[in-house]
Amino acid sequence: MEGHLLAANQDNSIDGIIVYYPVFNNGQDQYLQQIMDVSKDVEGLSHRYIFNMYQNIRFLDNQKLQKSILPCTPLAIIKILEYLRVYNAILPYGNRLFGHSITIVNRSEVVGRPLAALLANDGACVYSVDVTGVQQFTRGEGIKKSRHEVVEKEGWSLKDCVPFSDVVISGVPGESFKFPTDLLREGAVCINFSTEKVGSLSSTAFQIIALNCGLLRRTSVQMLRKRPRYMCLQ
Amino acid sequence: MEGHLLAANQDNSIDGIIVYYPVFNNGQDQYLQQIMDVSKDVEGLSHRYIFNMYQNIRFLDNQKLQKSILPCTPLAIIKILEYLRVYNAILPYGNRLFGHSITIVNRSEVVGRPLAALLANDGACVYSVDVTGVQQFTRGEGIKKSRHEVVEKEGWSLKDCVPFSDVVISGVPGESFKFPTDLLREGAVCINFSTEKVGSLSSTAFQIIALNCGLLRRTSVQMLRKRPRYMCLQ
Repeated sequence: MEGHLLAANQDNSIDGIIVYYPVFNNGQDQYLQQIMDVSKDVEGLSHRYIFNMYQNIRFLDNQKLQKSILPCTPLAIIKILEYLRVYNAILPYGNRLFGHSITIVNRSEVVGRPLAALLANDGACVYSVDVTGVQQFTRGEGIKKSRHEVVEKEGWSLKDCVPFSDVVISGVPGESFKFPTDLLREGAVCINFSTEKVGSLSSTAFQIIALNCGLLRRTSVQMLRKRPRYMCLQ
Repeated sequence: MEGHLLAANQDNSIDGIIVYYPVFNNGQDQYLQQIMDVSKDVEGLSHRYIFNMYQNIRFLDNQKLQKSILPCTPLAIIKILEYLRVYNAILPYGNRLFGHSITIVNRSEVVGRPLAALLANDGACVYSVDVTGVQQFTRGEGIKKSRHEVVEKEGWSLKDCVPFSDVVISGVPGESFKFPTDLLREGAVCINFSTEKVGSLSSTAFQIIALNCGLLRRTSVQMLRKRPRYMCLQ
């Protein structure tokens, strides 16, 4: 696997590489992610892309010609929020979520935490919820900071943030978790990115878009627009 | 005055009439408002227009060709909210404020109360505040009702509704009232329609549009588009 990746890095006929993780489902997967050539990393799993995302650095170059690659599921959710006009195009680029309170139920490294960072970097006040509690991601008062900061909200739970959130994003796998829909405020935009149905959430929320994670993998092909070939390993 | 109005009603060379109230500043002004021919009432002060506004009836005819006239200051504020994308064009016409909480500090018959009714008819949850307390204007759960209903919020004050309002509209004349800007949530859209400056509100709120009531009178000329002449009394 390592040899295939290194060879693909060198092969000029290959423009992009996607690895369907988990391969080994341990630290070796992180190793594989980092040996991939950054310029061929379609999924944005290289450290440089992840660093840029958390630091709110949007381009790879000073001329701002090459966009930094974002992970596909968070990016797809952003595209949905843009379509739904939650992003307000009258505000300056980079601040277009200012004024929105967003609850995200999931803080995985693949979706929940990067999504919270991206939405906070765009100006939102984000409440990131998992079984350990609630964290607030914001760019501070008046979104004056250039990137988000994280504050632990001691003792908080869903009932402290969902009622005043105008966007609620949930992605909890398994049948045991049921979203408490009685906490939702009128007119809240609700998105479920779990591949499993959310049961009661889909029956009462105003706008539900069930996302299929397979479809989302199509979103990060930005770098392939100029380079029409790619290689698929695993 | 009465004679002038009745004559203007009959005069085919006159297409619209504006009276600068107050004339007598008593019940006689209401009398004058009602004797004006509805088809020439530029300001929408005839009972039929006011009834339609509160009842959420938007057209004069079943074919929906003739729009019912709205009062100019509330309409100007609606146009500003449309421009600022608070009205979400992805939602069906008539429901485009769904999900928004709006506080209006003023419940005059000229601006505050009609504005609260109009915004609630468009789907918002509106908190109408004056010295007597807070009233909530909504179309009920899931905006299922065809027009707004009003509920008295016993014991409520600004601190109970401003912190979770994403739009705050204030129009309190006089220097003595200062809006408590510390209650505003981050990113709230703030509009002052008083002709007087609001002091502290304008220095801290994110988006302030100072409206000049004189300018607003230009907004209700819809009926004059086809009829280019009008007569001005008083």
